[in-house]
This record gives sequence, structure tokens and C-alpha cells, in this order.
Amino acid sequence: MDLGTIIGVIAGLVIVCVAILLGSDFGIFVNIPSLLIVFGGTFAVTLIKFNLKDVLGCFKLAIGIAFKNSKSDPEYLVNTAIEMATAVRKNGLRALENFKVENDTFQRGAGLCADGHGADVIRETLTKEVNLTILRQEKAEKMFRGIGESAPAFGMLGTLVGLVQMLSNMSDVNTIGPAMAVALLTTFYGALIANAVALPIADKLAEKTENDQVNLDLIMNAVLQIHANQNPMVLAEILQIYLPAAGGGKSKKKAV
Amino acid sequence: MDLGTIIGVIAGLVIVCVAILLGSDFGIFVNIPSLLIVFGGTFAVTLIKFNLKDVLGCFKLAIGIAFKNSKSDPEYLVNTAIEMATAVRKNGLRALENFKVENDTFQRGAGLCADGHGADVIRETLTKEVNLTILRQEKAEKMFRGIGESAPAFGMLGTLVGLVQMLSNMSDVNTIGPAMAVALLTTFYGALIANAVALPIADKLAEKTENDQVNLDLIMNAVLQIHANQNPMVLAEILQIYLPAAGGGKSKKKAV
Amino acid sequence: MDLGTIIGVIAGLVIVCVAILLGSDFGIFVNIPSLLIVFGGTFAVTLIKFNLKDVLGCFKLAIGIAFKNSKSDPEYLVNTAIEMATAVRKNGLRALENFKVENDTFQRGAGLCADGHGADVIRETLTKEVNLTILRQEKAEKMFRGIGESAPAFGMLGTLVGLVQMLSNMSDVNTIGPAMAVALLTTFYGALIANAVALPIADKLAEKTENDQVNLDLIMNAVLQIHANQNPMVLAEILQIYLPAAGGGKSKKKAV
Amino acid sequence: MDLGTIIGVIAGLVIVCVAILLGSDFGIFVNIPSLLIVFGGTFAVTLIKFNLKDVLGCFKLAIGIAFKNSKSDPEYLVNTAIEMATAVRKNGLRALENFKVENDTFQRGAGLCADGHGADVIRETLTKEVNLTILRQEKAEKMFRGIGESAPAFGMLGTLVGLVQMLSNMSDVNTIGPAMAVALLTTFYGALIANAVALPIADKLAEKTENDQVNLDLIMNAVLQIHANQNPMVLAEILQIYLPAAGGGKSKKKAV
Amino acid sequence: MDLGTIIGVIAGLVIVCVAILLGSDFGIFVNIPSLLIVFGGTFAVTLIKFNLKDVLGCFKLAIGIAFKNSKSDPEYLVNTAIEMATAVRKNGLRALENFKVENDTFQRGAGLCADGHGADVIRETLTKEVNLTILRQEKAEKMFRGIGESAPAFGMLGTLVGLVQMLSNMSDVNTIGPAMAVALLTTFYGALIANAVALPIADKLAEKTENDQVNLDLIMNAVLQIHANQNPMVLAEILQIYLPAAGGGKSKKKAV
Repeated sequence: MDLGTIIGVIAGLVIVCVAILLGSDFGIFVNIPSLLIVFGGTFAVTLIKFNLKDVLGCFKLAIGIAFKNSKSDPEYLVNTAIEMATAVRKNGLRALENFKVENDTFQRGAGLCADGHGADVIRETLTKEVNLTILRQEKAEKMFRGIGESAPAFGMLGTLVGLVQMLSNMSDVNTIGPAMAVALLTTFYGALIANAVALPIADKLAEKTENDQVNLDLIMNAVLQIHANQNPMVLAEILQIYLPAAGGGKSKKKAV
Repeated sequence: MDLGTIIGVIAGLVIVCVAILLGSDFGIFVNIPSLLIVFGGTFAVTLIKFNLKDVLGCFKLAIGIAFKNSKSDPEYLVNTAIEMATAVRKNGLRALENFKVENDTFQRGAGLCADGHGADVIRETLTKEVNLTILRQEKAEKMFRGIGESAPAFGMLGTLVGLVQMLSNMSDVNTIGPAMAVALLTTFYGALIANAVALPIADKLAEKTENDQVNLDLIMNAVLQIHANQNPMVLAEILQIYLPAAGGGKSKKKAV
Repeated sequence: MDLGTIIGVIAGLVIVCVAILLGSDFGIFVNIPSLLIVFGGTFAVTLIKFNLKDVLGCFKLAIGIAFKNSKSDPEYLVNTAIEMATAVRKNGLRALENFKVENDTFQRGAGLCADGHGADVIRETLTKEVNLTILRQEKAEKMFRGIGESAPAFGMLGTLVGLVQMLSNMSDVNTIGPAMAVALLTTFYGALIANAVALPIADKLAEKTENDQVNLDLIMNAVLQIHANQNPMVLAEILQIYLPAAGGGKSKKKAV
Repeated sequence: MDLGTIIGVIAGLVIVCVAILLGSDFGIFVNIPSLLIVFGGTFAVTLIKFNLKDVLGCFKLAIGIAFKNSKSDPEYLVNTAIEMATAVRKNGLRALENFKVENDTFQRGAGLCADGHGADVIRETLTKEVNLTILRQEKAEKMFRGIGESAPAFGMLGTLVGLVQMLSNMSDVNTIGPAMAVALLTTFYGALIANAVALPIADKLAEKTENDQVNLDLIMNAVLQIHANQNPMVLAEILQIYLPAAGGGKSKKKAV
Repeated sequence: MDLGTIIGVIAGLVIVCVAILLGSDFGIFVNIPSLLIVFGGTFAVTLIKFNLKDVLGCFKLAIGIAFKNSKSDPEYLVNTAIEMATAVRKNGLRALENFKVENDTFQRGAGLCADGHGADVIRETLTKEVNLTILRQEKAEKMFRGIGESAPAFGMLGTLVGLVQMLSNMSDVNTIGPAMAVALLTTFYGALIANAVALPIADKLAEKTENDQVNLDLIMNAVLQIHANQNPMVLAEILQIYLPAAGGGKSKKKAV
């Protein structure tokens, strides 16, 4: 689980709720038609912008990525690659059949080596898989950024509807205040969805995609070197540039 | 029909209408001068920005693209290409004369092969057609984005006109509210056109253009390979990179 | 005359005027100090941003381009080029002396050929002229975009001046409304200039510059081919890529 | 003196003053705490963004560039270069010692030639000087753009301070109007600084930097050609591309 | 200590405080729930956008960079490099063991030379360290820019909460003013954090990163030349391009 995202989303909502409860009861901040217009409108627009099946897929993917820790710790990947290279040196590429890697792309790459495919096929298959993964994550990010744009827009639309209704019928002065409070709720919902949920998650996805791109490059490099029966020491040396400073120091000692 | 766009546009408008009807009758949201200023002004500005004939053409094109499903499913295109290559292998390029393809560019390319044109002519003709298609769709997207900018601007202009008129003549206090409600209607119309219709359709067009670019590249590739009397197996292998993951797996089994 | 621009500008202003007249008389929308602050301020800022002589030149150029139809219809240019090539084939480059072309750059290029200059001189002279034309049009576009930014800014400044004056002196309640109406007029003027005139014209200039860039490329190509005594058939073939789809089909029949 | 900038700045401020004086006396637009918050805040933020000594240097530089006419008229530079080349042809590079050029970089380049340095040293020294000049001007532009962002932000901060103070203490209804007028003054100051002074000057600096880049390229080219003892005729031909159209025609006649 | 940043931050806050105290006492600008919503919300969103450990690290790094003077004065670095080169000429690379440099990267580079590593290893190790340093600073800048976006967003959310609460309960007219004052406080806090602290510090970080990039390039160049046993005179000549104009002149005299 990615603690940062979970703590962040919960903390953000708790803070807003506490701020609300310090000044009034929660009831005045719940209004079904206002929720309908912001959530429904944002969803409708998202359906126009993206394909129906993309919307559901991206949503699930985004939740998965944003809330779970990536299984692609570079240090783990490098160590696995060194183990694999050692095994291949001893027992040939067949030895990779028994390796269990906690990363789908790496597993697939090892499988391709074990099946005896050539370097070209491996490179092409992995490149395709990598591009597809990156593409899907970028689409998910784009969708959340789109939600972050549409939600405030529908919030404003809802507030305009409320204002027009309030201004058209001002016979009872006492209802003006509450009517305007309700009108402002859609703006509040829209701003909350955009700034406390959708845009931060889009930013998180962007950062994870960036990390994944580096990791997938690492895996591609590692698999091709293993396939070429590279010396584990040299492989460690080559892969070291993917490690952050401290880890780099450690694995360096091991390798040299 | 592209269900996403249709459901999205209808759902968006229904949601806004329901939200309106929950609080008042529909009548107070219809005002002819306000509609005139937003729709007329946006149309006038669109006429300045683009050529008269472009405006109508782009509008028709955009509706066609946004609401209809693209006929360029990559799997269908790849399978058709493989069939064509098989036929050409058996009966020569003349065999392409009888093929019916549900994609104009592909049909044109097959026709050029059957007519005995050289690879250079085919490449050039298709490139030109592809560039023209992409260019036209990009112009349509640009036009909808332009509408998405102009509509809120004219909405604001209309509201300013209404506010100035209301403030100049405040003798009767009871008319202030309704007058301001009417003034706000143009802002409402402008925001509705931009955020619920024009900008989402522009985004949809952008996504479809992106897909088309990939498909047209596929078609170009396929036609040139078929023209070169390529082996259907090898062709399937080559075109496989255009297929999404699952489909890629399936056609792979066929090809190998 | 470019009908789109003229209809668009007139329609836009007529629509705003009609919307005004439906609710009040025109007089309350005319205020000399407000006009002074928006027009004067925008002009002053434009003088700071650009050189004095550039401002006048760009303005004239922009009006000329935006309201007149471009004389560079690609089909006309291609046909003229083919005629020229035919004449050169018969009577040598001297034959170009008598050609009248409705496009200055093309005329200049033909003149350079007739004067017996080498291909290098022609290429250099035309390149310089083309770059200068594009540069000047881009400066004009930049200026109109600058006006589209400054006008709303000075509109806001004027409204702030009006609001401060109104708020400082609220002894007579009856004057508050009209005073605020006048304060809002500058915002109205600024938004009108920017959204109904300056920005659409800047967009139009951008589009025309794009077209011109293609046409000037066509002319450069044509002149150099004619200078090289190219066969008119081959020239038609070469220039065909500059024609839109339908026209391309027609001139193809002629050429083949 | 650059008349455009001077007329523009003065005209802009006069227009705003006249607009103020037409509606009230000037006194209500002067408020020391409001001036303090906008000017002081903007200056404080500029100190954070840039180094202390950079701020003063950039300010002086920017004033110098924006208000003075550039001494780098391309036609003057080309003519000087031709004179130099003629002198060098007659009396060798030593002849450059006596030349007085109204452009520091050109003077420096001529001095380096006269001192007998090699082409490499000259190229390197001038490149460094040119890069430094461009860099400094870009920093000045960046600073003015920064001021154009910070001034409105501190204007808004000041207005918020004023509004909170006014709303906290509404016992005397008669003070509400004037208090709000004072609160709006900071927004007015911020918008005035940004839109009538800082941003236009930043744009002017950007344009002058663009011109300078071309002129410094011209000088570099000219000095290296003179150092290589180039024929003045050929030099005129080479430098002609830096001249605008009309001037280009004139100097061409001289040269050919 | 970087005086600019310190003076700037303190001056900015003092100016705002003075402006507040001139009009009221400080108490009305302190409101715990408002502080909670802006600071808490911004922190929560930052936790979503970045990893938990990154947030703390970046914060410490940013404070360190923004408030301390960089120890990488180019003149100091060049002079140190010349001393090193002189020492290496006399006593070989071992002589570098005793050098104390006030710059970690330079020290590391000297150590690698003294340890007898090859040029390839040195280049690779330093490149990695440089990239890592730049990357970390860019992440810190990104974080502060993110804070500069989130703080005003949560300020607006807080104001919306306050407005809805105030409007829902307008029974006592006397509380409306103070309630709205409190509602505006969150907008004030958000704008203050963003414009007076977060965004200027992000800009400062960006500028320092730019300087560091040049300095790290200088160090890389210097270490490799020293490793290659370069003549100190030639080294001074080579490194001179990293010095600003005046310093360049001085060190030139030394070198020639």
C-alpha cells in the first residue's frame, strides 16, 4: 500500500470535515441535486472525452497505481538480475524457467529467454509491452486531469443554476441566504474533487509513470544482458546507474 | 454509433435539466436575447477565425467523427491485409480489384495496387490523402476549441450588458433580482456550451485523430507490403505491433 | 474581400447592439472617459511593446490581410506556373518578362528569371522576401494578440477606478447603481475589443500566415523548376501536392 | 531615446490620471499603507527570486535598454564593416586601431583584430561577450515579468487585508464604502504596475534582445570576415541578408 | 547565508504585518480552523503528490539551498582547479589526496583521481552524482511549486465552507460581517503562502539549479583535465569561459 496517497486523501477529507464541523453541523453541506450535477456532469463529460470501456479500465488502473506501492523497487530488480545472470552462467538460459519475479514485465522477459527466443524477438516484445504499459498509465493520468478540469466547471454551472433560481424568486427575503448557500455547494464540491482528489492523483500517476519508465528501461537492459550471457559482475556494474546514491554505494561494494 | 459521446452529451444535458427542474420551472432558463448574444456572437467570431466554407465542413465532419464509431478497428484492418496478401500471392495484384474494404483509404490503396501503379505513386498518393484527413480533423478540433473559448467570452459580454442595464435603472427594487437572473443566463449558456459540449467534443476529436494516425500508418504499411508481394505470415508478424495486447496474442498464434 | 471576416465582425457588433437595444437605449453604453481609458491605455501599452513605426505598419498590414481575400489561390498559382513553364520551353526565360502574375512574390521570381540571374541568386532573394513577409505577418499577429491582452487589463483598471470613486462617495444612495454601471463599462469595452475583434483577427492572421507559408513554398519551388527549364507535365506533377484533394484530382487529369 | 517607450509610459499614466480626475480628486487614490504593501511586497519577493546585486543591475540595465534607442542600427553596422574592410585592405589590420564604433562589441572585435589575435581567440572572446549580453538582458526581462506577476498578487493580498478589517468592524455603516475603496486601491496599484509598466517593458526587452541577437551575429560575422582580409564588395554581399528589404536594396546598389 | 532570500522573506512578512497593524490589531487575522484547513490541506495534497520521505527530504533540501549561499563560486572553483593542476604537475595525482575543497562534488572528483581510477570511471561517477543532485533540486522546486498551487486552492475551499455556513444561518445580521471576515482568512492565508513564500522559493531554487548545472559542468571539466595532467596555464584558459566578464579579465591576466 502506498501510505502517502492513503494518508493524504484521508487527511485532506478529514481536515475539510473537521473545519466544517467546527462551524456547523454536517447536514448543510449535503445536497443531493448539487451532488448530482457535479458528479453526474463530470462523469458525462468524461464519457464524451474517452471511450466507455477506457473510462472504467483507467479508473481501476489509476486506483491500483495511486494507492498501491510499486513492486518495482530498483534495488530489488538489480539484485534479481544479478542472481539470474549467475544462474544463467551456471546452467544456461533454461535456468530462468524457475525464477519467480514480482514484476510482470521482468517475469515475461525471463520467460522469453527461457523459451529460447532471439534477442530481437525479446527486445520487440518487451518494447511493445513497455509502451503499452506507459500508454495506459498516461491515459489514466489524462483522465484524472480531465476530471480535475470538468468538476470545477460543472460546479460553476450548478452555482449559476442556483443563482438564477434564487434571483428569479426573491419574494421571501429569509430564503435568500440559504438558497445562495445551496448554490455555492456545487462550486465547493467541484473544487474539492479537483483539488483534493483528482489533480493530486493525476500528479501521483505522472510521477509513478516516470519511475516506471526508468524501471522498465532497467528491466529491458537486464534481460538483454542476461540473454547475452553477461558476467554478473559486469552486469552489476552496468545496472548500477539505475540505483539511487546510497544503494548504489552498497551494491558497488558487492560488485567490485 | 459512438455510444460514449451520445450517452455523454445526452446525460450531461439531462442532468443539468433535472437540476433545473428540481428547483424551478424551465421557463426562467430560456431567454431569447441571451441565446442570441451567446450563439450569435460565438458564430460570428468563428466566421472571423475560419473561412466560411471551412466552418460548415468542419462542423459536419466533427459531428460525423464524434458521434460515429470509427470504422478503423485495427484488428479488422490487419485481418483484411492478411487476406489481401494471400489473394495477391495466389492471383497477383489484379485480385485486389474485387476486395471491398470498409475503410476509404485502404480501399483507395488496394485500388492503386490493382491499377498497376508503382510503389512511389502509391506511397505519395496515400501520404497525401492521409495528411489531408489528419489536417481536416485537426482543423475541426481547433474550431471546437475556438467555440469553447468564445462561448464563455460572449457569455460574460452578455452578462456585462445585462448588469449595466440593471444598474442604470434601479428605480423599482423588485425588478433587480429577476434582471440579474437574466443577466447571469448568458454566462450560464456560455459555460454550458463550452464545458458540456464544445470542449469535450474537441477532446474526443483529438483522441480519434490520434487513433486514426496510427491506423493510417498501419494501412500505408500494409498496402506497400502487399504491393511488394509480401508473404502473409511475415505481413501478420509486421502488422502485429499495431494491435493492442490481447489481440496481438491471438493474431500471433495464427501467424506463427 | 474576405467575406468571413467582414460578416463576422459586423455580425458580432450587430448582435451586441441588438442585445443592448432590446433592454435599454444605446446611450447608457457610451461613456467618453471609459472609452478613453480602454482605447488610450491599450494604445499606450502597444507603443511601449512595439516600435512606433511598427505599430502603424502592422495595423495597416493586419487590416489588409484579415479583410481581403488572399490573392494566392494555390490552383491559380499552379496553373500560372505551368503556363510559364510552357512559355519558357518555347521561347526561353526571356518569355517571362511579359507575364503578369497577381502575386508579388511570384512576379518578382519571374522577373529574376527573365533578368538572367542564376538559381542561387533567385533562391536567396526569394527566401529573403518570403522570410520578411512571414516575419511581418507574425509581428502583426503578435500585436493583435497583445491588444487582446491589454484591452481587458485596462478595462479592469478603469472599473477599479470607477469602483473606488463610487465607494468613496456613497452619500446619495440613488447614484450608486448608475455609478457602478459606468464603472462596468470599461470592463465591457475591454472584453468586447479583445473577444469580438482583436483575438479573432489574430487567429485569422495566424491561419493566413500558415497558408502563405505553403504558397510561398509552392512559388519558390515553381520558380526554381521553371528556371531549370522543367517540362510543364513534370512540373504539374511536382506541384500537385500543394493542391487540396478535389483540385488535385482535376489538375492531375490535365497533366497526365 | 526610444520615443515609443517614453510616449507609451507617459501616455498610459496620463490617461489613467485624467480618467481619475474626471470623476474625483486625486487624493482618494493615494494611500500610503496600500502603496507600502504593493511596492514593498513586490520588492521583497523580487529579492527572494533574484540575487540582491542582480536586482539593482537588472533594473538599471532594463531602464537603459527600454528607454534608449539601440545603437545597433544594422545599416550603420554594415556600412562601418565595409569601411573597415576597405581600410584593412589598404593598410592591414593595424588600421582598425583608429576606428571609433558606436557599438561596444564591434569596437572590442576591431580592437582584437588590431592587436593581432588569431581568429579563434576573436571568435571565442566575442561569443562569450555576446552570450553574456544576451543572458543579462534575458535576466532583466525575467525580472520585469516576475514583477508583473508579483504586483497583482500583493495587490490582492492587500485587498484581502482591507476586506477582513472592514468586515470585522461594521459598526458604523458610513465607513463601509470608503473602507472598501481603500481596500480596492492595492488591487488597483498592482494591476497598474503590472499592465501599464512591468509587462510592457518586459515585452520591449524581449523584442530588443531578439534584435540584438541578430545584430551581434552580424558583428561576429563582419569582424571575422574583416580579420580574414575579405574583399569589401563580397563583405557587403554577405552582410546584406541582415538588412531589412529597402535598405537591402540600397546597399546592394553600392556594393555591385 | 543567502541575504536576498532572508531579507526578502522577512521583509515580505513584516510588510504584510505592518499593513495589518496600521488598520486593526493582529488578533482578527489569526483563526485556528482557517490555519488548519490551509496548512493541513496543502500538506495532505503534497503527501499524495510525492512520497512521504521525499516530502521531508525535499523540504530540508529546499530550505538549505534557498537560504544558504551556494559554496560554488565559479572563481573559487577555477582557482582551486589551477592550484590542483599545478600540484599534480609537480607531484602526480597522489598530491590531490591532501586537497580540501569546499564543494562536495569537486572533493569527490579529486579523491577519485588520487585513488588512481581511470578517466571513464571518474566521468561516470561524477555524471551520476551531478544528475542526482540536479534531479533532487528539481524535485524540491516541483514540490514548492505544488504548494504554491495547492495553498490558494485550499484557501478557496475554506472560504467556500465559511460562506456556506454564514449564508445558511443569517438570523443575526450583526454576525454576517465578522463571519465573512473569517471566511476570507483562508483565501488570505493561501495567497500569502503561495505568493510570498512558496512560489518565490521555487523560483530561487530554479535559478540556483541553473547555476549549479554550470558549476558542475565546470567541475567535471576541471577534474578530467587535471586527471589528464593538463598544463595549469592551458587549464586556466579552458575554464575561463565559466567566469563572468570581470573575473574573466582578471584570471586571464594571471594565465597569459
